[in-house]
Amino acid sequence: MDQIPLYRRLAAHYREAIETGAMAYGDRFPSMRSLMARHQVSLSTALQLCHHLESDGWLEARPRSGNFVRQPRRQTVRPLAEPVPGQAPDPARYVGINARVSEFIARGRQSPVKVNFSSARSAPALYPGEALKNSAARMLRRHPELLVSPPHNNGDPAFRSVLAKRAMANGMLLTPEDILVTHGCIEALNLALRATTQPGEIVAVESPTFFGLLQVLETLGLRALEIPTSPQTGISIEALELAIQTTDKIKALVVVPHLQNPLGSIMPDSHKARLVALCALHDIALIEDDSYSALSNDGTPLKALKAWDRGGNVIHCASLHKTLAPGLRLGWLTGGRWQSRIEMLKYVHSRNNEELAQLAAADFMASSAYDRHLRRLRACLKTQRAQTAEAIATYFPDGTRLTEPDGGLALWIELPHGLSSRTLFDAALAEGIFIAPGLMFSNSNRFEGFIRLNCGAPYSAEIDAALKRLGQICKVLQS
Amino acid sequence: MDQIPLYRRLAAHYREAIETGAMAYGDRFPSMRSLMARHQVSLSTALQLCHHLESDGWLEARPRSGNFVRQPRRQTVRPLAEPVPGQAPDPARYVGINARVSEFIARGRQSPVKVNFSSARSAPALYPGEALKNSAARMLRRHPELLVSPPHNNGDPAFRSVLAKRAMANGMLLTPEDILVTHGCIEALNLALRATTQPGEIVAVESPTFFGLLQVLETLGLRALEIPTSPQTGISIEALELAIQTTDKIKALVVVPHLQNPLGSIMPDSHKARLVALCALHDIALIEDDSYSALSNDGTPLKALKAWDRGGNVIHCASLHKTLAPGLRLGWLTGGRWQSRIEMLKYVHSRNNEELAQLAAADFMASSAYDRHLRRLRACLKTQRAQTAEAIATYFPDGTRLTEPDGGLALWIELPHGLSSRTLFDAALAEGIFIAPGLMFSNSNRFEGFIRLNCGAPYSAEIDAALKRLGQICKVLQS
Repeated sequence: MDQIPLYRRLAAHYREAIETGAMAYGDRFPSMRSLMARHQVSLSTALQLCHHLESDGWLEARPRSGNFVRQPRRQTVRPLAEPVPGQAPDPARYVGINARVSEFIARGRQSPVKVNFSSARSAPALYPGEALKNSAARMLRRHPELLVSPPHNNGDPAFRSVLAKRAMANGMLLTPEDILVTHGCIEALNLALRATTQPGEIVAVESPTFFGLLQVLETLGLRALEIPTSPQTGISIEALELAIQTTDKIKALVVVPHLQNPLGSIMPDSHKARLVALCALHDIALIEDDSYSALSNDGTPLKALKAWDRGGNVIHCASLHKTLAPGLRLGWLTGGRWQSRIEMLKYVHSRNNEELAQLAAADFMASSAYDRHLRRLRACLKTQRAQTAEAIATYFPDGTRLTEPDGGLALWIELPHGLSSRTLFDAALAEGIFIAPGLMFSNSNRFEGFIRLNCGAPYSAEIDAALKRLGQICKVLQS
Repeated sequence: MDQIPLYRRLAAHYREAIETGAMAYGDRFPSMRSLMARHQVSLSTALQLCHHLESDGWLEARPRSGNFVRQPRRQTVRPLAEPVPGQAPDPARYVGINARVSEFIARGRQSPVKVNFSSARSAPALYPGEALKNSAARMLRRHPELLVSPPHNNGDPAFRSVLAKRAMANGMLLTPEDILVTHGCIEALNLALRATTQPGEIVAVESPTFFGLLQVLETLGLRALEIPTSPQTGISIEALELAIQTTDKIKALVVVPHLQNPLGSIMPDSHKARLVALCALHDIALIEDDSYSALSNDGTPLKALKAWDRGGNVIHCASLHKTLAPGLRLGWLTGGRWQSRIEMLKYVHSRNNEELAQLAAADFMASSAYDRHLRRLRACLKTQRAQTAEAIATYFPDGTRLTEPDGGLALWIELPHGLSSRTLFDAALAEGIFIAPGLMFSNSNRFEGFIRLNCGAPYSAEIDAALKRLGQICKVLQS
């Protein structure tokens, strides 16, 4: 208890007061002076308290008037349902997602889009553009022959060294040589799947999962077995066990343990330990995509599945373009017992990554500026998600349900009363609003009633108007 | 005739005089003054004449003494033999090259290498490092959010526009939208093969061919059908016709029409027209790797196979890291009727290329500095190849044969009297000399008696000593 900062303990106290009605909507919140006197705290603590409650949506500051208790979210927005235990999985099947995904993406590209909720990305303003630019310029000056010299094998040593050091916080003991630099996490996943499977074989995936992964499976000729996944705790290990017992050999499993895309779930450590052991027991290559873990609300480092790996059965993949720079296509992996095969596949497919981006990233990441940036990014995303969630609660029809993930870029929303996300997609796009329909996140039609909304851009009047309009369209489509 | 510059016509005259013995080795070459008087030419023309003869190896300048006729190459170095016409091709088979290539490369990496003749690359000093660095820095200043913004779909518009403009000189009428930017030519080839074939199908390739391509075929589970290839005119169209008639369905053909790797051959235009028609007739996807054409001796633009394509059956792939910058992994393709499938595969495998390298390259390539750089690079490579060829003629045993390609980075050498390149590789590596044995360039053992020597580095005493030592080792191994 002592490890929780004082301002947070006070925040919990006031939150409870608001939730129980002891403080009502519109009430003036105590001034700094009275907070300091009442709780015997410093001005700094009082300021932190108010800032925290404000960013969580409990207070609003009115200029020259002080802080006021904010209208609480409507009670009608329920969290998403958990998957039903014991449900038999769909049979494994070849993925036919590209045509569907391509259709939605192509239509978004061809239409005049005013507000894009579709991609899982943050606004450039949330990233350290200036500092990275300076790092890149510095590296060009320091290494004048950089652009005309062949890059290092498997990645730049300085960059791999920074990655290895940072991986320690996530429970992984790696040397720089254990790390292979790739063109984003997507290349890492492609390589991991090519190294561990043959066309026609079965790969288990979370359901729902991000369409990028389903596209990879389709283009590699693999069969997807979708495993029910909880919005809270990630992939259902019971469902996976059932699938192992009842279906053909599963060759690999791909999971996003932290801030799963699109659900936002985070696997508890106890689940991770079980999952790693289960996959090792049944000789299923366990491929983790851990690109989001630095975006959790409180920033406490999360332990990778790889941290439980003893026999080299886990391939850990990650990237930096969600956390550091959307304009750098930097990913990496550590491949366990497939490392040398993956290195060969990477070389044969796209050779070694260029140096400049790696050196610029290494330069920036080695400084404390990187941690400061991550703190700011996490806070921005948290606020943006809260604002979006509140708008959904306000504007969308009764019966709408949504995730409230502890981090990440997006919200996953269940539309009420069997409303089809395809219909909503069409109607919204006609008005310049681009959303990602749930149909893109599964090889089945199971998520037709869902949408994913990206919250990566700073909340604005335009975004608010678009969410309001989405809610109105839902109501019209319902009636 | 009038289009040939005066100094070249004079050079031909003096070359003939040397070849016929009218001027002998060691003879003093006429002074500038007497050249001007004798031929009624300007000082500039006289200087150009001497420079040209010197760079072609006919003259040597001795400090403070003037120019002297140089010892001609020994007559014993014969050009390589042409493939025998009507020879039945090997059966198509799965490639098993990775283990072999990996072994040679790994051994090169593990040994203390003093001189590396193995990779087909040029020294950084031959590339415009400073100018590219300035272009990159300028682009960072001009686009301050470049590193934190998502890259353009399929490649940067400015870069694709420069590529489309330059492709006109090679007979291709392309719009920027026809061009997909890739991570080097190797990714372009991977994508082209994935778009046009399924695992298990047959791909025809040149024999010998570069091991990078054989590695791609192996990792994609394709079967290679090796077609005899001429050191002069490239792939044998007769042999390909025979293969079409006698083997199972050929799905795709990969060729390097200009400065083939490792042979250095250049297909005559008449062959190109026949090849494009033949492939269209038999529904064989024709994939061309045209990464070297800017490195031909005289720099006259060569027409791509794609220039004859009418039905979209040719996929043109190229790269810039041999011609512009080994440190930029920039390649591109135009995919004919497979364009949209290839774009999808590229996106699914590695997303869009980063912007910075593309913008820097576009900035540099849009200026006349690029053409000046190419002229200088071609001249350097020509000199380096000539110096290497002369050293081989001097140091290697009788019976050695070699290519004398009209451009490119490398020489392809046939060792005398059945000497094995594997044995030579072992003995040379023990002395710190790293060569590429012919075994790497075929799925068969047909080229065991060959080696490829890279001539990308400025000729030096160290290189000369290494070539001398290679020749001595050959002589020892022979005896």
